[in-house]
Amino acid sequence: MNKISKYLYGAAIVGVLVSCYDSANAQFPGFKPTPGDTLKSIRISADHKITFSMYAPKASDVTVSGDFQKSYGALKLQKDELGIWTVTVGPVTPDLYSYDFMVDGLKVVDPKNIQVKEGAGGYSNLVEVPGKESDYQAIKNVPHGRLTKVWFYAESLGAMSRVHIYTPPGYEKMTEKLPVLYLQHGGGDNDASWATAGRANFILDNLLADGKIKPMVVVMPYGNPGGGFFAGVGVDTDPYYNYFFKDLVPYVEANYKVAASRENRAYAGLSMGGLQALNMAIFFPEKFGYVLPLSTGFLLIT
Amino acid sequence: MNKISKYLYGAAIVGVLVSCYDSANAQFPGFKPTPGDTLKSIRISADHKITFSMYAPKASDVTVSGDFQKSYGALKLQKDELGIWTVTVGPVTPDLYSYDFMVDGLKVVDPKNIQVKEGAGGYSNLVEVPGKESDYQAIKNVPHGRLTKVWFYAESLGAMSRVHIYTPPGYEKMTEKLPVLYLQHGGGDNDASWATAGRANFILDNLLADGKIKPMVVVMPYGNPGGGFFAGVGVDTDPYYNYFFKDLVPYVEANYKVAASRENRAYAGLSMGGLQALNMAIFFPEKFGYVLPLSTGFLLIT
Repeated sequence: MNKISKYLYGAAIVGVLVSCYDSANAQFPGFKPTPGDTLKSIRISADHKITFSMYAPKASDVTVSGDFQKSYGALKLQKDELGIWTVTVGPVTPDLYSYDFMVDGLKVVDPKNIQVKEGAGGYSNLVEVPGKESDYQAIKNVPHGRLTKVWFYAESLGAMSRVHIYTPPGYEKMTEKLPVLYLQHGGGDNDASWATAGRANFILDNLLADGKIKPMVVVMPYGNPGGGFFAGVGVDTDPYYNYFFKDLVPYVEANYKVAASRENRAYAGLSMGGLQALNMAIFFPEKFGYVLPLSTGFLLIT
Repeated sequence: MNKISKYLYGAAIVGVLVSCYDSANAQFPGFKPTPGDTLKSIRISADHKITFSMYAPKASDVTVSGDFQKSYGALKLQKDELGIWTVTVGPVTPDLYSYDFMVDGLKVVDPKNIQVKEGAGGYSNLVEVPGKESDYQAIKNVPHGRLTKVWFYAESLGAMSRVHIYTPPGYEKMTEKLPVLYLQHGGGDNDASWATAGRANFILDNLLADGKIKPMVVVMPYGNPGGGFFAGVGVDTDPYYNYFFKDLVPYVEANYKVAASRENRAYAGLSMGGLQALNMAIFFPEKFGYVLPLSTGFLLIT
C-alpha cells in the first residue's frame, strides 16, 4: 500500500467517524456538553489532601465516606453554581483508600473513576494517594506474578466455584514445589478483593523483588459459599469448611506446583476471614503450619 | 475441643456480632431499614421480560438504557408510593445484556447487581436472560480454562502493560504448542471486556467441551495504549501497533506454549477492534493466517 492509498484509507476512516458522530447526535437528540464531562472526581494535592467532586445539579444532598477517615461518617459535599459538589479531606497518609458517594440517599459508583473494589454486595471506588508510605503496594517495573481467575466444579457445593490464584514471577518454568498461602477476604468482600483493594499481588511482587519473601502461590477463595454473611462459626455445618478441605485444597494441590504438607500450608484472613483463620487454628491445626488472623476484633472480648 | 467449648466459642462470636451491630448503629445513627434493602433490581419472567427496579425516593427522573433494545433510547421508570421506580421490557431474546441506570441525569451503577462490564470509561451492569439461545455462553459444569491478568513492562510504551489471557482446560500439562488468537475489544471497552460482557472464556470452554474447536490460547490486549479513543488508523504512528508487535507478541511467544508462525496466529476484533483487524490484514498480512473484523461498519462506506 503506497502513501496515497494510505491517505485515502485514513480519509475513509475519518468519514466513518464523522458519520458515527452524526448518528450519535441523532440517536441522543438531547445530548449537550455539561460541566461534568471533563470533571475530575478526585484531585490529590502535593500535601496529600483529597478533593472529591461530583456533577449532580439536581441533587439535594451529596456525601462521601470511606476508609480515608478513622470513622465512616458521611462527609457532606458543597454545591457550586455549576452543579458540581465538592469536599476536600486530609491530609491523609499515602495509601489506597476506598470511598462511596451517596446522592440523595442512593449509593453511586463514581462515574469518573474506573478504579473499584469488587465486593459481595457491590462496588466501592478506590483512590490511591501516592507517597513513600504506600510505595510497598505501588505497581512498579519489577517482575510481576500472574493473577488468575480459576473456575472448577465444587462437589460439596453442587456448583461452579471461582477462586483467584496468584503465581509468582517465573512460576511457569519452576520445577520445585512452592509453599501456598490461603488468603481470605473480609465480610462484604469477595475472592477478587484481596487483589483490588488489597493489592496482594503487587505487594507480593514488590516483596519478592526486594528479596524479602520466598516465592509462593497465594489462593484467594470466596468466603461465603453458603450465601450467608457470616461464615465464621459452625465448622460442622458451614459450607465453607467442607468446600475448603474437600474441594479447594485438593484442586489446588492437584493443579498447582505446591507442596502438600502442613509446614508448607499457611492461612491468613481479614476480619470475617480472621475469624475463619481462628477456626482453622482451633479446629484444623494439623492442616496448617502458619495461621494469621487479621483485625478480627475477637481477642478484644473479655 | 469438646461440644461445650464449641458452644462457648460460638456464643462468644455471637457476642462479637451483637457488639459490632451496636457499634454500627452508633456509627450510623441515621440507619434505618428501607424498601430498597431487600429490593431485587432485576426480575426476569418465564417469558423473557426484564423488570428493572431502583429505590430512589428523592429522585425526579429515573431511566434505563441498554443493548436489550435495538436503539439505546432511555426508558423512563415509574415511581410507586414507596419510592421504588420500575419498568418492564421485552420479551427479549435470551442473552447477556448490558444496561445503565440514569438518576436525575447521573449515571448510577445498579447498587443491587454485582455483575458489571468494565470499560475504558466506567462500568455498565450486566443482566443474563437465560434460555436456549444463550446456552452457548452459560457457565456450565464443563472443564474450564483459566483467565489470567498478566502485567509486563512494555518498552515501546515505557510503562507497565496489562493483558488478559485465556488458556484452555488442561493447558498446564500440555506439551504441544497451541495456536493463538489475539482478540481485540471495541471502543469504550478494555482488556477485561471480552471476558465480562463478551464471556469469551465461557464460550470457548463450551465450544471445547462440544468438540467444536481445537484448544487455543486467547490473548486480549488493551486497544488504546496511546490513551486516545480511536486507534484504528495510522499504523506508523499509533502506539498500538508498535506495542503489539514489539512487546506483546514477543512476550506471549516467550511465555506461553504457542506456535510462533503465521498459520498459528489469528486476529479478531470488534468494532474499533474490527478496524484494527482490517489494519492487520492490510499492513501485516505476513503475521496472521486468519483475520476476522467484526461489526466495523467500515464496509458500508461507498
